[in-house]
Amino acid sequence: MRPFDFLFNPKTVALIGASHAEEKLGGIVLKNLLKFKGRVYPINPKYGELMGLKTYPSIKEVPESVDLSLILRPAAEIIDLLKEHEGRARGVVIMSSGFAEIGEGELQEEIRKLGKKIGLRMLGPNCMGIFNPYRSFDTFFLSRDKVARPQKGNVAIVSQSGAIMHCLFGIMRDSNMGVSSAVTYGNAIDIDETDLYEYYVSDGKTDVVISYIESVGNGREFLEKAKQLSGKKHLVILKAGKHPGGRIAAYSHTGRLAGRYEVFRSMLEQYGIKEARDFDDLIDTVKALSYQNPISGNRVLIVTNGGGSGVLAADECLRQRLEIPLLPEQKRARLKKVFPYFYGVNNPLDLTAQVKDKDYLTALDELKDDYDGFLIIALTGVVGITTGLGKLLGSFKEKTDKPMVFHTSCSGESGKLISIVEKAKIPSFSSPECAVRGLRTLLKGQFV
Amino acid sequence: MRPFDFLFNPKTVALIGASHAEEKLGGIVLKNLLKFKGRVYPINPKYGELMGLKTYPSIKEVPESVDLSLILRPAAEIIDLLKEHEGRARGVVIMSSGFAEIGEGELQEEIRKLGKKIGLRMLGPNCMGIFNPYRSFDTFFLSRDKVARPQKGNVAIVSQSGAIMHCLFGIMRDSNMGVSSAVTYGNAIDIDETDLYEYYVSDGKTDVVISYIESVGNGREFLEKAKQLSGKKHLVILKAGKHPGGRIAAYSHTGRLAGRYEVFRSMLEQYGIKEARDFDDLIDTVKALSYQNPISGNRVLIVTNGGGSGVLAADECLRQRLEIPLLPEQKRARLKKVFPYFYGVNNPLDLTAQVKDKDYLTALDELKDDYDGFLIIALTGVVGITTGLGKLLGSFKEKTDKPMVFHTSCSGESGKLISIVEKAKIPSFSSPECAVRGLRTLLKGQFV
Repeated sequence: MRPFDFLFNPKTVALIGASHAEEKLGGIVLKNLLKFKGRVYPINPKYGELMGLKTYPSIKEVPESVDLSLILRPAAEIIDLLKEHEGRARGVVIMSSGFAEIGEGELQEEIRKLGKKIGLRMLGPNCMGIFNPYRSFDTFFLSRDKVARPQKGNVAIVSQSGAIMHCLFGIMRDSNMGVSSAVTYGNAIDIDETDLYEYYVSDGKTDVVISYIESVGNGREFLEKAKQLSGKKHLVILKAGKHPGGRIAAYSHTGRLAGRYEVFRSMLEQYGIKEARDFDDLIDTVKALSYQNPISGNRVLIVTNGGGSGVLAADECLRQRLEIPLLPEQKRARLKKVFPYFYGVNNPLDLTAQVKDKDYLTALDELKDDYDGFLIIALTGVVGITTGLGKLLGSFKEKTDKPMVFHTSCSGESGKLISIVEKAKIPSFSSPECAVRGLRTLLKGQFV
Repeated sequence: MRPFDFLFNPKTVALIGASHAEEKLGGIVLKNLLKFKGRVYPINPKYGELMGLKTYPSIKEVPESVDLSLILRPAAEIIDLLKEHEGRARGVVIMSSGFAEIGEGELQEEIRKLGKKIGLRMLGPNCMGIFNPYRSFDTFFLSRDKVARPQKGNVAIVSQSGAIMHCLFGIMRDSNMGVSSAVTYGNAIDIDETDLYEYYVSDGKTDVVISYIESVGNGREFLEKAKQLSGKKHLVILKAGKHPGGRIAAYSHTGRLAGRYEVFRSMLEQYGIKEARDFDDLIDTVKALSYQNPISGNRVLIVTNGGGSGVLAADECLRQRLEIPLLPEQKRARLKKVFPYFYGVNNPLDLTAQVKDKDYLTALDELKDDYDGFLIIALTGVVGITTGLGKLLGSFKEKTDKPMVFHTSCSGESGKLISIVEKAKIPSFSSPECAVRGLRTLLKGQFV
């Protein structure tokens, strides 16, 4: 077993606080565990069976020692419950809240010491645990009917907050991004971001790691592990609790004091670790990295059927220090001959409202060697844009390793077109500026 | 008639270049005009009738002089067509492209002089004209099947670009924002943003004006009219062509050279005119202003059921120089008694995943007098959040003039909940940070 396999890939799981109904958190988690391929032991002294599974009065009665025990009982019961775990589990996830985040730091410290004494690795408290779609392992107390899970994919999520995980799930589904595995670790009494970073360094299914952090335990260790992970995967950090007031909020949320942000930030920069500016920036950055691989270069071609959208994109390119060089004169002359006289054969290349799908391919085929990255803008309200464009762009993308991003309007068949384009691994963004920032993420190299 | 009524509220309209089918732009516009309450004269020498309307070979044969003539014919024909307009129309919209934006500045100048000589007011060229939902008047060459129009409302759009209008329409529908009227003016050969600002100063249906600008004709006049409009309505400007490269793009789009942005920006600031940072910022700012009225104050209460979302919001508050003061001690003690022990009774007030709808109202009723603005975060993946929350928030909002904004996750019944909340005139935003920026727009006053 790899380290932390007991957490991400357990074979046997106990659920303390299992319940019969989805109105209770213990019922939601048990229902999610029904799909899990390993052995599940519900624990509840009031029942002999729950959702068709034999149920045990305590962890002590379970017929084998388990890899992982999930605890979903009130804070005041945790000490006694943990004592029963000695020799019965490799790790526990304490999902319950009511600890340092509401000022009960002493109780939390007592739990930490007890866990250490009896040799239990602990995740939480005040967390939702693990989601591993490759094993159908899901401990989150969010009903699947309410929070549909993302598909399998290459993005790992390491989140101190369950709420952020909840929001990420919805947005990742909407953006056609998939998850390799996801973990929330709450108050980080034992297992924290540094342990989890270490785990993901060698996780074959993960290309990108999202890390939502409110506070860091050991700063030096954090930086070392973050740097290590950054060397192997695309690590993108979203740090909350940046400002004095926000720090107070972060403290009351997970009970760990957020450090001085300016220091944190400058250290990340020094170590070359990516930090997202805010939630939306996180999504755009991760989307780009989960769809395509960055290359060196900074010369961008913008092909659009909307003049204004092209100008906004050009502005953002220059703000992001991306170049938008003019077309090579010979190629410009050739395109001028092929296209109607009123097309704007420049960069941005403006195919106007009278565009046809195939014009994009004509432009890209002519200019593919002259640029490092491509931004395609196709507003779907005009007659000549069809979902067929998705296939054309996909066929072009297949033949090149150069980054390509997409933007469209909320009109016509844009929903369908986005889904085709994203299946072809071209990420779509909701505004010209977001698309450019996505492209910027995929173009490394010398920026003046 | 008010000035520019011939443009926004014509009684008689001619369409030069009318066509029989929606595959042609002239067919799309004619179909849109079928809903118009005034008299419509299609012009096309090849047909006696189009879409059930008697059709004329030229503007000269139309039985009356019209308020507005729409021209959708190739650039090379415009001069001859205009000559026929003498005494036949008060104004023309030249929709055709192929002028200064592709280097044909001389032709454009010739048209300008001709229009002036024969006393025609001209909109365009290279534009889509007018949308006035209150008169069902719609000259845009975007099929309604592909680009659904926003509902009637209080936001006017003055856009140099048709593409940006196209994108705004989709997003405004999705955000439940309504339009008072909308105009695209392209190369601005005659009627430009200053004329249009003047029109909107006294437009009773408009509370907010979006102005998308690539280039400005007369800088001094622009500032004067913008200041005047800002005094009466909420004017929000999105300036494109900010950077040298972007300026080239803007030039090739509408053929007017974009000035030095730094000067433009500092002038706007000096005159207290609002400028959006980018397209997304424009949408968030306008959404806030179209839903609610700003008040003085900067003390924000955040009520959330997601700890992490609250911390991100608190961070953004402090970045935006909004205060998030602690709860008054007496009220905090009272709420501590009412709420379960594990709720975080602070600011942000964390109702946790075990929240119930009514908890929001309990908190708001207790604290409504202690804060100037409210951010409500309700992630819908948990059991206790239902669409009933929308009604509760709506009833609270009815009793207060203080700004209130909303954020939710893409999960559960969030779509339905957003629609109920927005019907109650509480704008919803897609991230905690966007919601805070929306609230910031609604809180004027002294910021340190």
